Amino acid sequence: MADANALPLTLLAEQFARLPGIGMKTAQRLAYFVMSMSDDEAEAFAKAIIYAHKTVHTCSVCQNLTDKAVCPICDDKTRDHSVICVVEGPKDVSAFERTREYKGVYHVLHGLISPIDGVTPDKLRITELLQRISKDDVKEVIMATNPTPEGEATAMYISKLLKPLGIKVTRLAFGLPIGAILEYADEVTLYKALENRNEI
Amino acid sequence: MADANALPLTLLAEQFARLPGIGMKTAQRLAYFVMSMSDDEAEAFAKAIIYAHKTVHTCSVCQNLTDKAVCPICDDKTRDHSVICVVEGPKDVSAFERTREYKGVYHVLHGLISPIDGVTPDKLRITELLQRISKDDVKEVIMATNPTPEGEATAMYISKLLKPLGIKVTRLAFGLPIGAILEYADEVTLYKALENRNEI
Repeated sequence: MADANALPLTLLAEQFARLPGIGMKTAQRLAYFVMSMSDDEAEAFAKAIIYAHKTVHTCSVCQNLTDKAVCPICDDKTRDHSVICVVEGPKDVSAFERTREYKGVYHVLHGLISPIDGVTPDKLRITELLQRISKDDVKEVIMATNPTPEGEATAMYISKLLKPLGIKVTRLAFGLPIGAILEYADEVTLYKALENRNEI
Repeated sequence: MADANALPLTLLAEQFARLPGIGMKTAQRLAYFVMSMSDDEAEAFAKAIIYAHKTVHTCSVCQNLTDKAVCPICDDKTRDHSVICVVEGPKDVSAFERTREYKGVYHVLHGLISPIDGVTPDKLRITELLQRISKDDVKEVIMATNPTPEGEATAMYISKLLKPLGIKVTRLAFGLPIGAILEYADEVTLYKALENRNEI
């Protein structure tokens, strides 16, 4: 096939296609869009990639992504540092922050235990969590991993490590999502909602 | 809301969100993915943007995107330069090239006439098409714009400019797509298929 595209365009499309959820057709569309940008816009885009990649690293305390030595949440003296919410990734921190209700701090594991994908406990930031607990006065650790097999396994693994230390380990509540229709709820969710029912 | 993300990450996500079809949630996911790249990968991505943007421009003949003065298709002496296929954008050139059947050359308009979006004929590369026709020995111009109101209007507008010059102007055939099921075809497509029926 004669290549109708210029080589630099093909190379750029290939870069876009490496991103998660972006297929080759979308990647080509994005590459064409970059062509329609002004010089300044294209440069700002490229610089944002380099700048974010260079300056963002993990927080020395909670392992969340930050451009400071200690992230703003860990650095916030008004937050309750005796409660640690353990999550899979930085996206989960953003999700909890959007609730505006949680006043404790976080610990980002950067993954979930999944032997099938080669992710063993030593690949996660569990050592950092244990070190943190041994240093700080931690009262409660909330296991806030996803309700998936990997999330459950990771929550169980970490809770077994923490229990002997005399720390209260809790798990997120599972039940019906707000706005759900009973009829369409799956069996496991409905069972969990029934099992964890509260007096009103 | 406390910003749980590092600022450079937010800036990068905003850059991704400017791309067509990428919402803020996907943009954040892509920004996090960039963080998981190696230094070399992130740099290659940023460089591909700058490199493509700097080196790719429109072909001086057909207006398609290229990194050369004249694109490989216009430069190909084995192609039939007396037949010009007029398309909306570079993506359409790629689509025709994938058929491996078309041996003529192209002319890329970079848009369609759409007064509602402020796209008047002078915003398209129509002048370049007329100049090209006056210079070269062109026998046929194929109007290959989309079968949409804008595509039809553009095809009609250009054909009216070309007819007085004594050039054969043709339009793509409309009918049933291959593999279609009659029952599900829309009325206009079915009418076109009936109207343009061929003897077998």
